[in-house]
Amino acid sequence: MAKSPEEEHPVKTFGWAARDPSGHLSPFIFSRRVTGEEEDVRFKVLYCGICHSDLHSIKNEWGSSNYPMVPGHEIVGEVTEVGSKVEKVKVGDKVGVGCMVGACHSCDSCANDLENYCPKLILTYNGIYYDGTITYGGYSDSMVANERYVVRIPDGMPLDSAAPLLCAGITVYSPLKYFGLGEPGKHIGIVGLGGLGHVAVKFAKALGSKVTVISTSPSKKAEALEHLGADSFLVSRDQDELQAAMGTFDGIIDTVSATHPIMPLLSLLKSHGKLIMVGAPCEPLEVPAFSLIIGRKTTAGSCIGGMKETQEMIDFAAKHNIKADIEVISMDYVNKAMERLEQADVRYRFVIDIGNTLAATKPSS
Amino acid sequence: MAKSPEEEHPVKTFGWAARDPSGHLSPFIFSRRVTGEEEDVRFKVLYCGICHSDLHSIKNEWGSSNYPMVPGHEIVGEVTEVGSKVEKVKVGDKVGVGCMVGACHSCDSCANDLENYCPKLILTYNGIYYDGTITYGGYSDSMVANERYVVRIPDGMPLDSAAPLLCAGITVYSPLKYFGLGEPGKHIGIVGLGGLGHVAVKFAKALGSKVTVISTSPSKKAEALEHLGADSFLVSRDQDELQAAMGTFDGIIDTVSATHPIMPLLSLLKSHGKLIMVGAPCEPLEVPAFSLIIGRKTTAGSCIGGMKETQEMIDFAAKHNIKADIEVISMDYVNKAMERLEQADVRYRFVIDIGNTLAATKPSS
Repeated sequence: MAKSPEEEHPVKTFGWAARDPSGHLSPFIFSRRVTGEEEDVRFKVLYCGICHSDLHSIKNEWGSSNYPMVPGHEIVGEVTEVGSKVEKVKVGDKVGVGCMVGACHSCDSCANDLENYCPKLILTYNGIYYDGTITYGGYSDSMVANERYVVRIPDGMPLDSAAPLLCAGITVYSPLKYFGLGEPGKHIGIVGLGGLGHVAVKFAKALGSKVTVISTSPSKKAEALEHLGADSFLVSRDQDELQAAMGTFDGIIDTVSATHPIMPLLSLLKSHGKLIMVGAPCEPLEVPAFSLIIGRKTTAGSCIGGMKETQEMIDFAAKHNIKADIEVISMDYVNKAMERLEQADVRYRFVIDIGNTLAATKPSS
Repeated sequence: MAKSPEEEHPVKTFGWAARDPSGHLSPFIFSRRVTGEEEDVRFKVLYCGICHSDLHSIKNEWGSSNYPMVPGHEIVGEVTEVGSKVEKVKVGDKVGVGCMVGACHSCDSCANDLENYCPKLILTYNGIYYDGTITYGGYSDSMVANERYVVRIPDGMPLDSAAPLLCAGITVYSPLKYFGLGEPGKHIGIVGLGGLGHVAVKFAKALGSKVTVISTSPSKKAEALEHLGADSFLVSRDQDELQAAMGTFDGIIDTVSATHPIMPLLSLLKSHGKLIMVGAPCEPLEVPAFSLIIGRKTTAGSCIGGMKETQEMIDFAAKHNIKADIEVISMDYVNKAMERLEQADVRYRFVIDIGNTLAATKPSS
């Protein structure tokens, strides 16, 4: 008979979990493995970002949720224990874990540092680990991961605003690099100004591109230009603005997960331009073939990034002082935060102050 | 007042034209310029392929047809006269003209030998030339073009089967090269076995790829494997075959212009694989964003190729003995050929024997 989450591993762990598709989160006692694996790193969780996919997952909106579920894959903290063969970090170092904690390590993708595209990718939560147990995420007091999946947070980088970069940051950084868009002189569009979009603007600017925010909301213009540092702003519903900007973009990163028209975005691209989807609308994209053929245009997708590139992204962010814009919350605010996230009422990412507020929510035993 | 087609240029020319959207073709007297432009090449047309777009154009199915229209953009012949500055060819050389005869020569695309993506591209027929006159295609006894748009046909290459390469050949060769698909060891799928698809198989094989023909018709299997030299054959409606081949293709060239599902093709791609549309269905492609994101897959388009690459393609074809499979017809068979083309009743391209059969159709005057 399978052991309970509380008993299956030696180390008692405390976090918050959803128990059913209501998505309501509440205190939860479970357990984690010791650093028995020689390459394991254990760390005390200090901050964990709330990704929009946490909301989808706790409500089982993708149909693959296991309960109880401890979400969270934008996790930073301080190393408390390392396995005997760990070389990457030592006790006291600041580290992070993003969306994944394992993969097959024998396929082409793994061999090319693209664990994120491994068919046997193990997600940080709601995944099945090598030992058959369910993985639990960062809404918890401690975390254990193989060092391959642990990112070093550079000295002096603020930990709270670094957390969202482990998912949102790498999600936009990777396609900018892979598709040759993050280069000086390129004109890049960022569609949607949320958790992903606002860091996409910062990365694209730091990479030397001219950046235009493309949004349905004229109200975001001042924010985009003055606060985030975009070079220009395009209201995608304004036909005159669209017309004037046709054929002027080398690439567009589309972060919007609501269904929206793709044709206008393709028309904004120069010949050989690339539209990269990182948000995933449920309805299929409607892509006129002629729009791709005339101008040799590309529509592609991109999904987070490999661990080597994630480290590169964090180092780049530290060097260029790129931070996610966050609202730090206490653990007991998480259900309210999920409600607000559903209304897009956050600029731009909630980050839970696990280190200072989780312990107080622990039931007395 | 604009001059008539017969009078606007000095050199009387004879061909066949469509006069209205019935698409019926009949003898037509018009005129062409002398090689007054210093870089012009005049040649006697010997063969002209019938591209499926000729059929769309004579029937005004794309809504942009001007009548009378002399179609034909797979034109080969023998040089009879050259302008004073022509360096590429001399009288007696065998040459070809494909889909275009002019462009702006000042944009980024033109500067990069990609005249085919120039916004001011001038099509070989139904285009407006620099002098304001309508361009006429290769269903005619002679042709004049600027040498930039003239391809040298290598010695010894059969002219009749070379003609279709000027459109169909470059249309599939260019994306194989640009998207990194025509490389030894790559597994390439070719969707559709028509004028484009059958030469795509030959080019991909000659470039060293493993080639699988993907078709709705099991009846084409023997043809694909035994005659065209494909390595394997996949019936796209067979769920078991599809399932077995999932995730095994580096790239797919889709030549089908009828509306068809895209999702199964995306599922056939490996991570980072590319689906390239060269056929243009009228209905938008339905592309699930998740299919692109999970596996960083690309859907792109490609449109013929630049003149430099067209010459490279013809030289490559000559070297590797690549020929289009053709049915040579006489000029007076053209209307029947169009009917058969509409029924896909040709393997795989009609080529009109202009040199030997056009003159006999000339009305006595």
